[in-house]
Amino acid sequence: MDTIITISRQFGSGGRVIGKKLAEKLGIPYYDKEIIDKAAEVSGFAKEFIEGNEQKMKGVSGFAFTSSVYSGSVWSNMENFEAKIFAAEMEAIESIAKNGSCIIVGRCADFILKNKCNCLNVFIHSSKQNRVNRILDVYKMEGDVKKTEKLIKDMDKQRARHYKYYTDSDWGDVSNYHLSLDSGEFGIDGCVDIIEKAYLAMKK
Amino acid sequence: MDTIITISRQFGSGGRVIGKKLAEKLGIPYYDKEIIDKAAEVSGFAKEFIEGNEQKMKGVSGFAFTSSVYSGSVWSNMENFEAKIFAAEMEAIESIAKNGSCIIVGRCADFILKNKCNCLNVFIHSSKQNRVNRILDVYKMEGDVKKTEKLIKDMDKQRARHYKYYTDSDWGDVSNYHLSLDSGEFGIDGCVDIIEKAYLAMKK
Repeated sequence: MDTIITISRQFGSGGRVIGKKLAEKLGIPYYDKEIIDKAAEVSGFAKEFIEGNEQKMKGVSGFAFTSSVYSGSVWSNMENFEAKIFAAEMEAIESIAKNGSCIIVGRCADFILKNKCNCLNVFIHSSKQNRVNRILDVYKMEGDVKKTEKLIKDMDKQRARHYKYYTDSDWGDVSNYHLSLDSGEFGIDGCVDIIEKAYLAMKK
Repeated sequence: MDTIITISRQFGSGGRVIGKKLAEKLGIPYYDKEIIDKAAEVSGFAKEFIEGNEQKMKGVSGFAFTSSVYSGSVWSNMENFEAKIFAAEMEAIESIAKNGSCIIVGRCADFILKNKCNCLNVFIHSSKQNRVNRILDVYKMEGDVKKTEKLIKDMDKQRARHYKYYTDSDWGDVSNYHLSLDSGEFGIDGCVDIIEKAYLAMKK
């Protein structure tokens, strides 16, 4: 039976690289930015527009003033655009899931695919300290700890708000996931091994 | 390096049987009710007294009226007794952890051992429906679904309150555990396999 592994993750926890490595190990496709391409096809929106706005739900300022594509009436149409982007990504995710086992990172895929196919919903988290260290290391942020802490806080807040708005459920609530893992404790490869084991346990 | 696996679990999720099977598989001791024996030794309280009152923290009625051991002034001394029971269990858990790798179920062991030894903190959960079915099956409650649902609600509430009171943290909050698992999804043996994998990943 096909199984869709959805990965939700705290910012800086390494969820994306865990997803990629796991996909290689299991020999199944990995979808992250690819969902944007597909959503662009479905909606007619430019990829860049989707990428820049896909999770900027309600109350995150900046969009109306930084977008060079739309101006003037954009603020009043905001919710409409956002809902259209979400609908397009939803269609893209549902279509991807029909093609067989795969890994999908982010974008409320756990909620979108609920009761529609066999899913293994995973949440990756890690302590703030571990995430700060990982971001400073991976993204070469030159030791700016305060800036990194603020980035983590803002990104997690944005993800939580986006998830809550569309699913009416809490992002990171243990009951929304079959498996939640501390990547700071197990490391990237440890997480890959554990999720693989869970994937095999579900197949039984 | 020794690793203490602490297992916290929603009522009816099978956390206890998972702990027992895992202990057999790993060949390490399993502690649950045995903590009560040790706490009785340390505190001088009777085992039955500890067992009957170890998690009845604040606002759970019934204790003062059902206890046949103490009466009259018991209500005013309640908090004191409860704190002493907790302190005795804490001492018992710290002493057990010094003897090497083992599995400890419940009793805020994840909090008690924090920063004192190498721990793998696990939380076992499952949907209400799965837990009702499991309890009806295992405890032969003869199809009384409403009663079982109430029991689940009351027991989880009691565990959450007890944990909050002593740890000032939220029971079942994903960030308090290295690994959280849905036993309804993976089954008892699936959970045992996954926790074993996590245990091995931590040893690396």
